[in-house]
Amino acid sequence: MDRPSKVDFPVEKVRRYLEPGPVVLVSSACDGERDIMTLGWHTVMAFSPSTVGCVIAAGNHSFDLVRRSGECVINLPTADLIDEVIGVGNTSGELIDKFERFHLTAEPGGSVAVPRVAECHANFECRLVDDRLVEDRNFFVFEVVLARVAPEPVYPETLHYTGDGVFMVSGQTIDRRDQFLPQML
Amino acid sequence: MDRPSKVDFPVEKVRRYLEPGPVVLVSSACDGERDIMTLGWHTVMAFSPSTVGCVIAAGNHSFDLVRRSGECVINLPTADLIDEVIGVGNTSGELIDKFERFHLTAEPGGSVAVPRVAECHANFECRLVDDRLVEDRNFFVFEVVLARVAPEPVYPETLHYTGDGVFMVSGQTIDRRDQFLPQML
Repeated sequence: MDRPSKVDFPVEKVRRYLEPGPVVLVSSACDGERDIMTLGWHTVMAFSPSTVGCVIAAGNHSFDLVRRSGECVINLPTADLIDEVIGVGNTSGELIDKFERFHLTAEPGGSVAVPRVAECHANFECRLVDDRLVEDRNFFVFEVVLARVAPEPVYPETLHYTGDGVFMVSGQTIDRRDQFLPQML
Repeated sequence: MDRPSKVDFPVEKVRRYLEPGPVVLVSSACDGERDIMTLGWHTVMAFSPSTVGCVIAAGNHSFDLVRRSGECVINLPTADLIDEVIGVGNTSGELIDKFERFHLTAEPGGSVAVPRVAECHANFECRLVDDRLVEDRNFFVFEVVLARVAPEPVYPETLHYTGDGVFMVSGQTIDRRDQFLPQML
């Protein structure tokens, strides 16, 4: 599989990739263990500091790793990684190493001690900054501390999960900048 | 504009519409005032009770209405409503009535005292159930108490905001149900 080369990207602008709602692969590590999970329940929360919220169900192996380390990487897969996205989402990190199983490359993080998934279009390295809703809602609030993005394509083809095994693939883009107030851009 | 007729939809299944990450129109009302805002920062949080989290910036007129009433409706616009989506997002409810200004029909809510936007494909009536992150993160946790959905199309064409005035329009769907474990569907 292709491992796109990436450049630093402003963390205040990760909304370009996350706000449209793609499925992401969240990687985590702690005390020699590592894991990846498929996640569709996330939202941008603030531009600066760059803040993202994610629901990680307590039953997941990743939940423990993120809870203990306070770190993760949000990796953005493109549509050609659909088999890996499904495979990661339908297996348990307690039983297998998902990097090995799905032939995904663990690339060392730059700002966190968590491997990035090299095959993804973008990697957003995160630190847990608010755990008030973790206990009873599985909701983690992260600050994005480092963003790495493949420069092309600017609008990658992403997967958006609808449930029931059905994904929507991102379609065309429409530029309506001329209808926006300057302060809304 | 068309006002699609809708039927009740199981609240546990609203992820089909919200998890792909569309821009939504959030309507609100309190003490004779009403408003609509365009919102792209939301996430599904649980199936049952059906829980959705939304970031509503404190500067918005809608913030006050939702804060005071503890209710809102999350309305799902299809791509043909792009001008209304942009118009609602670039005006302030303190200055104008957005229903009137954008010729949107305020239809009485069934379970909340907030009008639905009749032109939207789906209406999800919500009650605020957790305000712990409202004060310092503008993050509202809602329970969806009633869902109304147009039966067709099953996968409506939706708008997904990327910033900079550029929207992604939802593309084709891919059914990969046969690759899922039964318990993951």
